Amino acid sequence: MARIRLGMVGGGNDAFIGGVHRFASRLDDRYELVAGALSSTPQKARASGAVLGLDPARTYDDFKAMAIRETRLKDGIEAVAIVTPNHVHYAAAREFLKRGIHVICDKPLTSTLPEARKLVKAAEQSSALFVLTHNYTGYPLIRQAREMIANGELGDIRVVNVEYAQDWLTQDDDSKQAAWRTDPARSGLGGATGDIGTHAFNLAGFVTGLKLDRLAADLQSFVSGRALDDNGHVMLRYAGGARGLLWCSQVAPGNENGLRLRVYGGKGGLEWAQENPNQLWFTPFGEPKRLLTRSGAGTGPAAARMCRIPPGHPEGYLEGFANIYSEAAIAIEAHRTGAPIPPEVQFPTVQDGLEGVQFVDACVRSSKRDGAWVGLA
Amino acid sequence: MARIRLGMVGGGNDAFIGGVHRFASRLDDRYELVAGALSSTPQKARASGAVLGLDPARTYDDFKAMAIRETRLKDGIEAVAIVTPNHVHYAAAREFLKRGIHVICDKPLTSTLPEARKLVKAAEQSSALFVLTHNYTGYPLIRQAREMIANGELGDIRVVNVEYAQDWLTQDDDSKQAAWRTDPARSGLGGATGDIGTHAFNLAGFVTGLKLDRLAADLQSFVSGRALDDNGHVMLRYAGGARGLLWCSQVAPGNENGLRLRVYGGKGGLEWAQENPNQLWFTPFGEPKRLLTRSGAGTGPAAARMCRIPPGHPEGYLEGFANIYSEAAIAIEAHRTGAPIPPEVQFPTVQDGLEGVQFVDACVRSSKRDGAWVGLA
Amino acid sequence: MARIRLGMVGGGNDAFIGGVHRFASRLDDRYELVAGALSSTPQKARASGAVLGLDPARTYDDFKAMAIRETRLKDGIEAVAIVTPNHVHYAAAREFLKRGIHVICDKPLTSTLPEARKLVKAAEQSSALFVLTHNYTGYPLIRQAREMIANGELGDIRVVNVEYAQDWLTQDDDSKQAAWRTDPARSGLGGATGDIGTHAFNLAGFVTGLKLDRLAADLQSFVSGRALDDNGHVMLRYAGGARGLLWCSQVAPGNENGLRLRVYGGKGGLEWAQENPNQLWFTPFGEPKRLLTRSGAGTGPAAARMCRIPPGHPEGYLEGFANIYSEAAIAIEAHRTGAPIPPEVQFPTVQDGLEGVQFVDACVRSSKRDGAWVGLA
Amino acid sequence: MARIRLGMVGGGNDAFIGGVHRFASRLDDRYELVAGALSSTPQKARASGAVLGLDPARTYDDFKAMAIRETRLKDGIEAVAIVTPNHVHYAAAREFLKRGIHVICDKPLTSTLPEARKLVKAAEQSSALFVLTHNYTGYPLIRQAREMIANGELGDIRVVNVEYAQDWLTQDDDSKQAAWRTDPARSGLGGATGDIGTHAFNLAGFVTGLKLDRLAADLQSFVSGRALDDNGHVMLRYAGGARGLLWCSQVAPGNENGLRLRVYGGKGGLEWAQENPNQLWFTPFGEPKRLLTRSGAGTGPAAARMCRIPPGHPEGYLEGFANIYSEAAIAIEAHRTGAPIPPEVQFPTVQDGLEGVQFVDACVRSSKRDGAWVGLA
Repeated sequence: MARIRLGMVGGGNDAFIGGVHRFASRLDDRYELVAGALSSTPQKARASGAVLGLDPARTYDDFKAMAIRETRLKDGIEAVAIVTPNHVHYAAAREFLKRGIHVICDKPLTSTLPEARKLVKAAEQSSALFVLTHNYTGYPLIRQAREMIANGELGDIRVVNVEYAQDWLTQDDDSKQAAWRTDPARSGLGGATGDIGTHAFNLAGFVTGLKLDRLAADLQSFVSGRALDDNGHVMLRYAGGARGLLWCSQVAPGNENGLRLRVYGGKGGLEWAQENPNQLWFTPFGEPKRLLTRSGAGTGPAAARMCRIPPGHPEGYLEGFANIYSEAAIAIEAHRTGAPIPPEVQFPTVQDGLEGVQFVDACVRSSKRDGAWVGLA
Repeated sequence: MARIRLGMVGGGNDAFIGGVHRFASRLDDRYELVAGALSSTPQKARASGAVLGLDPARTYDDFKAMAIRETRLKDGIEAVAIVTPNHVHYAAAREFLKRGIHVICDKPLTSTLPEARKLVKAAEQSSALFVLTHNYTGYPLIRQAREMIANGELGDIRVVNVEYAQDWLTQDDDSKQAAWRTDPARSGLGGATGDIGTHAFNLAGFVTGLKLDRLAADLQSFVSGRALDDNGHVMLRYAGGARGLLWCSQVAPGNENGLRLRVYGGKGGLEWAQENPNQLWFTPFGEPKRLLTRSGAGTGPAAARMCRIPPGHPEGYLEGFANIYSEAAIAIEAHRTGAPIPPEVQFPTVQDGLEGVQFVDACVRSSKRDGAWVGLA
Repeated sequence: MARIRLGMVGGGNDAFIGGVHRFASRLDDRYELVAGALSSTPQKARASGAVLGLDPARTYDDFKAMAIRETRLKDGIEAVAIVTPNHVHYAAAREFLKRGIHVICDKPLTSTLPEARKLVKAAEQSSALFVLTHNYTGYPLIRQAREMIANGELGDIRVVNVEYAQDWLTQDDDSKQAAWRTDPARSGLGGATGDIGTHAFNLAGFVTGLKLDRLAADLQSFVSGRALDDNGHVMLRYAGGARGLLWCSQVAPGNENGLRLRVYGGKGGLEWAQENPNQLWFTPFGEPKRLLTRSGAGTGPAAARMCRIPPGHPEGYLEGFANIYSEAAIAIEAHRTGAPIPPEVQFPTVQDGLEGVQFVDACVRSSKRDGAWVGLA
Repeated sequence: MARIRLGMVGGGNDAFIGGVHRFASRLDDRYELVAGALSSTPQKARASGAVLGLDPARTYDDFKAMAIRETRLKDGIEAVAIVTPNHVHYAAAREFLKRGIHVICDKPLTSTLPEARKLVKAAEQSSALFVLTHNYTGYPLIRQAREMIANGELGDIRVVNVEYAQDWLTQDDDSKQAAWRTDPARSGLGGATGDIGTHAFNLAGFVTGLKLDRLAADLQSFVSGRALDDNGHVMLRYAGGARGLLWCSQVAPGNENGLRLRVYGGKGGLEWAQENPNQLWFTPFGEPKRLLTRSGAGTGPAAARMCRIPPGHPEGYLEGFANIYSEAAIAIEAHRTGAPIPPEVQFPTVQDGLEGVQFVDACVRSSKRDGAWVGLA
C-alpha cells in the first residue's frame, strides 16, 4: 500500500512528544510526513518545517489554514497528528474531522469535559477515524495481558493496582515542559491526574476490560504555589465488583516513568512495569511464578502481532508508540478501500479519550468533596 | 548477664508463630525458655512441652496457672512470650503484667478495641515492660530508613506508599492457620487489615515518625462466605500534611509476603521490600539511585546495631524478629538493675499495639460508612 | 541534509537481520532505501523488492549487477547495507568499496581470516567508508561506560567478565536461521564464537579500550552432529595486565540474548546487561552502588548523543542499532563535503571486523591445541 | 534428644566465623556450647570464654589441653567446632578425631595438601564424624537444585558457570581478617581460590554431582605486594563431558558475596545467587522461566527439610549455616545410638575438604604452568 500522507499540528523544534510521534510514524514505513503547522508561532513553525525537510508550501502558520488547503490538494494529507498542549486538541481536531481527515491525537483528549463531549460528537459525525495515543496500550505484553484476562486465565478479576510515578516535578520547575503541564489554562483541571493518571486509568481498563463504577480521590499539590495536583490517590470500584487503587505522582524522587500494573483474579495474577516492558509476570495461584518475555515461550497471537524482533532483544517506548501508529495505519488502509477494520486491530478511541477526561473530572470533584465516591459525569 | 528466664503462652506443636518466637529468642543467646502453657488443650500443652525439653513441672495447662506458680518460684520466669490467637492476648497479658512479669506479645495487640485500651492501662500500671512483636521494625535497613528520615535526608515527607500483599487466602482454605484468621471471634474485626494491614501501618509510622490524622478505607471480602476482609484499600492523611496509600491483601496470587514501603519527601525517596530485606533504595532527587545494603557502605549506626554478619551474606526474617527480642533483652536487663533503657533501643510498645487495633477499627468504620474519612477512635 | 541513498544486499522476505537494518536506517530519517539485491534467488529478490516498494528497475538479481548499474546512475546509491550470511560479505563488500560506495556490513566481517585481511586492504584502498554493525556499541549506556573508563573513573582495569548466552540451539534445529549459522561453509570456523562471541569480544574492547594479548579457549559442540561450536569458554589476557573471561553459548536454556559485561578496576566497577539496556551499575569502591539510567542523572555527553527520549521510557535494540546507522550517516555526510568526521562519532570499523575474525580464529586454534595461549594471527 | 555438648577451637572475641558457628549451633537448639580454646593467646581465650558464659574450668588455653581433659570428663564435649585460620585446622582436628570427638571444621580443610591427605586418614581411622562447613550447601534451594538435577529435570548437564566475587580486598587492607587470608603461612597456597574459590567449586559439585577431570587456571594478584592470588579464572572439564567456568575474585568492586551458580543441561537450566538465596530460576527449554521460592510451589522434599518458615519470609546465611549444624546433629544423634545416618542427610565431608585443597593446589599448579590442564593431585 502507498504510504499514508500525514500532517502534524504542533511538534515544533523543542517539543518532546512531536518528535516521538514522528519516530513512531516512521518506524514501520507506513506514513510519510508531508505537511505541518508545527507551532503557534509562525516563525518557529517555518523553521521547524525546514528542519524536517517539509515543502515550505505545506508548512503552515496555523492548523486551520492547513486543514483548508490540504483538503483541496490532490495529494493532501489523509491523516493528521495533533501533538499540541491539551487545550488546543479540541479546536484542531474538529477542523480536520469535519473535512474527513483522520486524526491521531495525543492524550488527554481535551482540557475540559465539555470540549471532550463535543469532540466525541464531532468524531461520530465524521467519516474519519479518531485515534488517541494512549501509547502504552501498544506494548506487546500489554496485549498479552489483555488476551490472557479475556481468555479467563486469571479468573474473575478482583483487584487492580495501577500506578504511574514520576519525579520531575518534585521541585519547582520552570521548563517549557513543566510550564504548560502545571497551568490549568493549558492542561485542564488535572495536573498529574491528567498528564499521567489518565494513562494509568486507561491502561487498567484496556487490560482488564473493566468499566468504572465510582471512584474516591484525594489529590494534593505538594509544591508550594502549584495550581494543579502533583500527586493523587484514588480508590476505584469497577462495575461487577472488582476494586482498584490508582496512584499517580510527579513528586516521587527516584521514579522516572514508573507506570506499573498489577491485576489479581480468583485464579492468578499478572504484573507488568513499563520501565522494563519486555517482561510480564504471570502468577497462577498455587504454581511457581512464570516470567513471560516479549515474543518468548508462552505468549500468544495478540502479542505476536506487535513484535518486530525475537525475544531477548528489547523493544521499547518508541516501538510501543509505533504500534499504535501501525494499528491506525491498518485502519486507515481499510478505510481507503471500504473494508472493515480487522477485529484484532486495537487502538484507543475518542470514547477512551472522553473517559480519560471524565476520570480527571471525577478525581477533581471527588477530591473537592473530601473523597466522596463519584461516578464519571 | 545471665540469660532471661522466659515462658511461653501458646506456640504448641503445630503453631507457626510460636516456633518463630523460639528461634528469635534463642539466636542471640539472651533468653532461656523454661516454662510454657503451650496450648489450650492440656494434652497438647504437655506433649509440646516435652518436645521442647521443658521441665514437666513447668509445663502448664493454662496461662493463669503458669503466672501464679512462676511468680512464686525463686527462679520463675522474668518474661513471657504470648503467641496465641488474637482473642487470648488480652487475658493472658493481664495475668503476667499484674505480677510484674515482662510481656512479649504477638500482634495485633487484641481482637477488640476495648480490650486494647484495658491492656494499655494494665501495662501502665505494671512495673513490667510490654513489647509487641511488630517484627519488621527489627530489620536493619528499616532502622536505616528511620534514621535517614529523622536526619532529614528526605526532606519533608509528602507521600507514603505501603502495602502488604499475600495470596494464601485466594481460595477457600480450611487449614488451622486460615481458620482462626478468618474467624471474627478469634481474630477480631479485621481480616487482612488485622493480620497484615497492622504490620504495614505500623511500619510506615515507625519509619517516618508520622502520626495518622484520618483515613478512608474500602474493605472487601472476595472469597464467598468469608466473614472478614481479605483485601483492603486505604487512603491515609497524616498530621502535618503527608498523604499515604495502604494496600493489604491476602488474595493477590503470586505474592507471598509482599510487604513493601516507599516514602517520598521533598529531597529524596526510599524504597524497601521485605522479601529481599538486605537492600534499601535511596533516591536523592536529581542524583543517581543508590542501593544501600545491610552493613554496606553508606549505612549508619542505627542499622549497624542490628547486624550480625558482614554485607552480602543475607540476614532474614528470623534475624529481624530476633532483633526485637534482643532489644527487649537490653531493656529487661536495664530493668533488672534499674538503669535507664538506652535511647537507641527501639521496640514496639503497647501504645503501638493500641494504634494498630485503632487502625483496624477505623478501617472497618470507614468502610461501613462507604469510605468516609475517620480518625483513630 | 538530503537523505542518504541506500541499497541493500540480502535481507529478503524471511530474513531477520535485513529487517533490523531497515528499521535502523529509517528511525532517524537520514537514509532512504532505493535499491536492493535482496536474495541470491532472483525470484525472491524481486518479490522482496516489491514488498518494500522498491523501483523494479532497481531491484537486482545479484549484488554485482547492482554495484555496476547504481554506480552509473546519477542518483545511484551512496551506501549499501550488506546483510547476507557471512560467507558472502567479502565478495559483496569488495564490489561496492572499489566503486566508492560506502559499506555498512553485518558482522562477523567474513567467514575466513584471509578474506578478512583482503577486505581490510580493499577498505584501505577505497575512498568509501566501511561500517561494521557491532550494534551493541550503539547503546547509550555502553557509550557512558566507555566514557567513564576513559575518564579513569574505574582506575586501572583489572578484570573483564563478558558473556553472551542464548538458548535457541539447545536442541537440534533445522530452521533457516539455524541452518547457515551451524554450517562451516556459510558461517566460517566459528559457531557460537562467530555469531555471538564476536559481539562479546568487540563490546569488551570497545568499552575498556583494551587490546588482547593472548587467549586460551575451550570450545564445545554439545549437540550431536553439530559441526561448529555451540559453547565456548575463553580466558583472556589483555595488553597491560588486565585479565578477562568470555563465555558464549547457544545452548544455555533460559537465556535469550544474555549479553552481559562487567568491568572492574582499582577504583570501581561497572555492570551492564543487554536485556535491560537502560540501566548501568556503577560501583565505586567503598561507596553505595549507583544505578545510572539512560538519560538520567549522572550520565554524560557520550551517552546523551545517543538518546532520543527522556529517562524512564525504555529505548531498545532497534534504537541502539539505529545509533550505528546515524553515526554512519554523520560520517557519510561529512564525506560528502570533505569535512572531517567529528571525533565523538564512533562506529565499528573494518579493523574491528578483522579483530573479530582473528578472535574466532584464535579461539579455534587454541581449542584445537587443548587450550594453549595464542595471540591474534 | 539431649543437646549435643560442643566445644570450640578459635572463635575469640573479634573473630567473624566463630560467631557464625555459634549462631548456627544455637538456632535449632540441638547443641550446647560448654567448652572452648577460643584463642591461641591465653588471655584472650579466657576473656572470650567469660563473655560467652563458659565455665572457666572449661575455658582452655590450647586445643590439645581441651581435647585431653574433655575426653576424661563424664560430660565432656561430644563435638568440637574448629574455626581457626586454615593452618591450624589439621593439628586441631587430629587431636579430637583420635579421641573420638566429632569435628565440625571450617573450610578450607587445611592449608596444605599433605595435611589434607593426613586428615582424611585421621578421619577414616576415627570413630568420630567429620563435618566441613561448606555452608552454602545448606541453603534450601541449593538442595532443591541438587534434587532436580539428580531427578533428570535438566537432562544431561553440559555447562556449569560458577562464580564467587567479592570486593573487600580491592585495595590494600591491613585488617585482621585480611591479614591471615593474604598470608601464605596461614592460608596456604591459595588466596581467593582458597578462601572463596573452594566454596564455588564445592557448590558446583554438590549441586550437579559432577566430578572434575581437569582444570586450567589463570590466577592473578592485582594488588601490589600481595603474596596470594586475589582473582582467579578457571576452565573446568568434568568427567562425562560437561564443561565449566569458575571465577573467584576479591577485587571486584560492588560485589559483596556474589556467589552465583548457573547450570545448563539438554532439557533446561537453573540459576541461583547467594545474595538472594530464597529464589531459584528454573528454565525448562522452550517454556517460560519459572521462579521457585523457598518453601513455595514446585519445590520438593529435599528443600522442605531445610526450611523453618513459610515462603516470602526470607531465610539467610545463618539459617543455611545452621542447616549444616542440624544435619550434623542428626548424624551425631544417630552415632549415639548406633543407628545409620538417614540417607537424606547431607553434609560436606573430609573427602570434600580434600577435594577443595586439591582444587587450590591444581589451580596454582596450572597457573604456574601457564594455564596447562591439570587434574587433582
